[in-house]
Amino acid sequence: MKKIINEPDRFVDEMIEGILLAHPDLVKTPGTDPRVLVRADAPLAGRVGILTGGGSGHLPLFKGYVGMGLCSGVAIGNVFSSPSSQQIFEATKAISGGAGVLYLYGNYGGDVFNFDLAGDLAELEDIPTQTVVGRDDVASQPNERKTDRRGVAGIFFAYKAAGAAAERGDTLEEVAAIAEDVVEHTATMGVGLSPTIFPTTGAKSFDLPEGEMEIGIGIHGEPGIHRGPLETADAIADRLVTALIADLDLTAGDRVAVLVNGLGATPLEELYVLYRRVHQILTGLNISIAKKYVGEYATSLEMAGASISFLKVNDARLALLQAPAKSPFFEEV
Amino acid sequence: MKKIINEPDRFVDEMIEGILLAHPDLVKTPGTDPRVLVRADAPLAGRVGILTGGGSGHLPLFKGYVGMGLCSGVAIGNVFSSPSSQQIFEATKAISGGAGVLYLYGNYGGDVFNFDLAGDLAELEDIPTQTVVGRDDVASQPNERKTDRRGVAGIFFAYKAAGAAAERGDTLEEVAAIAEDVVEHTATMGVGLSPTIFPTTGAKSFDLPEGEMEIGIGIHGEPGIHRGPLETADAIADRLVTALIADLDLTAGDRVAVLVNGLGATPLEELYVLYRRVHQILTGLNISIAKKYVGEYATSLEMAGASISFLKVNDARLALLQAPAKSPFFEEV
Repeated sequence: MKKIINEPDRFVDEMIEGILLAHPDLVKTPGTDPRVLVRADAPLAGRVGILTGGGSGHLPLFKGYVGMGLCSGVAIGNVFSSPSSQQIFEATKAISGGAGVLYLYGNYGGDVFNFDLAGDLAELEDIPTQTVVGRDDVASQPNERKTDRRGVAGIFFAYKAAGAAAERGDTLEEVAAIAEDVVEHTATMGVGLSPTIFPTTGAKSFDLPEGEMEIGIGIHGEPGIHRGPLETADAIADRLVTALIADLDLTAGDRVAVLVNGLGATPLEELYVLYRRVHQILTGLNISIAKKYVGEYATSLEMAGASISFLKVNDARLALLQAPAKSPFFEEV
Repeated sequence: MKKIINEPDRFVDEMIEGILLAHPDLVKTPGTDPRVLVRADAPLAGRVGILTGGGSGHLPLFKGYVGMGLCSGVAIGNVFSSPSSQQIFEATKAISGGAGVLYLYGNYGGDVFNFDLAGDLAELEDIPTQTVVGRDDVASQPNERKTDRRGVAGIFFAYKAAGAAAERGDTLEEVAAIAEDVVEHTATMGVGLSPTIFPTTGAKSFDLPEGEMEIGIGIHGEPGIHRGPLETADAIADRLVTALIADLDLTAGDRVAVLVNGLGATPLEELYVLYRRVHQILTGLNISIAKKYVGEYATSLEMAGASISFLKVNDARLALLQAPAKSPFFEEV
């Protein structure tokens, strides 16, 4: 293992401690459980709270998007493991400002189960909740079963849009509808080049022979849709973009927001080589790029690889993407 | 090689193409040479221009810091290679707004040679230049030969301070003095866990047996000062922080800005585990942390490892760090 850590069992808590020490102006632990993190100014009276959560190991997902114009709080699990329903419930109470709470997280069984349980607990305390799950991973299920897809990097778009809506004072129903609308128009596909090593066990998240790549691999190493020799950046971009265009049914004249995301070990340089090709393809098809993001937005520890996400935008979605936001890992004002 | 690239020889140019396509609102190529990149609004009449440059493979160094409140332009070399004097000269002309140009870059032989040559060319065209070189790598030379040290991640502090000074209209002499003052009070030390692979040759930047670390290793794989079994994050932080405190002669009551920087493949989670310990040590010594940065600020492609930089601050330096800035990779307003 090539990791800068202490006791593997303390990895998640020490990382959270580091975030709290580094960003006390932005985030806080509202109670005694360090796995619950909320905006420093939470709860905001009269505003919808947005709660996300999931396993650790994906920074800046999920903790990095807690802040102004983004999420209000996060419940944090162990590496690649769901937070508990109790942690989610604690976070719910901490961000509830009287206008209800939107649960917005990736579509994974454990997360769904625990968020649903927490929602029942919240109801008993008269905190209304609604749920929208990110399900943008095109490779995980075909289009006709898209509601079963896993959620990956594209959830960033939903955070950004729903967060802007909550910030301006939209109701719970409105914020949820906006999140749902964005999720519905988001698609992501990734490529993996090397696995994550689990800090606790030293095990790999998947096995891939030297010189091979896996298209459509999940951020926990879930199987993809094609494994073969590593191709050029342009060929990889062509595969991913073709799938995304088909899935979102994009045609000439459409506008998209693009996110080229690094999964961990892949250098920023390579993400720009990918972006270049994405830009060329879309421009060639007369699909315009209304907004772009290039960097690490959702990782899998030190996994090498990248993903490409598209959000089909209209004026309303674009305006929400352009609204100001400020969190430990994302600032655009 | 686990790289998402096309022809290795086209890697740098395609990466620059990607940056230009992604950020046309922030940066531009002023002439025909793609290796010269300047602020989209350059030249700024009456303002000092700040030019940086160096080899590729260190994103967000150097290209990522071209923008408002940071550098005015950059001359870009091949991976780990200096840009040419001609490229530096072209960039100088493109950012010259009549108030002179500060050359601000890392202390490496090829860069020094070519920037000096370009300065001579600029003088012939009546563009005054001054030079300040980043030389913060404590492990590269002892304190008594500190002017010979290599420049690494700590140059970010100099960009930030000098950029803020140029933005507010300081003279060339003033901007240079500020950069020099910041460089003088900056110290960095790193740890390497695995090497960079060169895209063109497939060679490693250094060899390190599995399970070992190298303290003080340079961002091109230059030898460090200690090689041994990989230690815990806390032990590594102790080593680095102890060296930095001694070098900057920090004592109780002093204030510092802290940069915990990832060298490429090391996850953000681990950087926060490191930050946690840095914070504990400094607080324990009654040295206060006036500003902190945690993330990838200067990398070495997919090298695993991290560095810690301190800038000893006073009110003037801190105010310059806090001034607004906006570039493709750094935004704080």
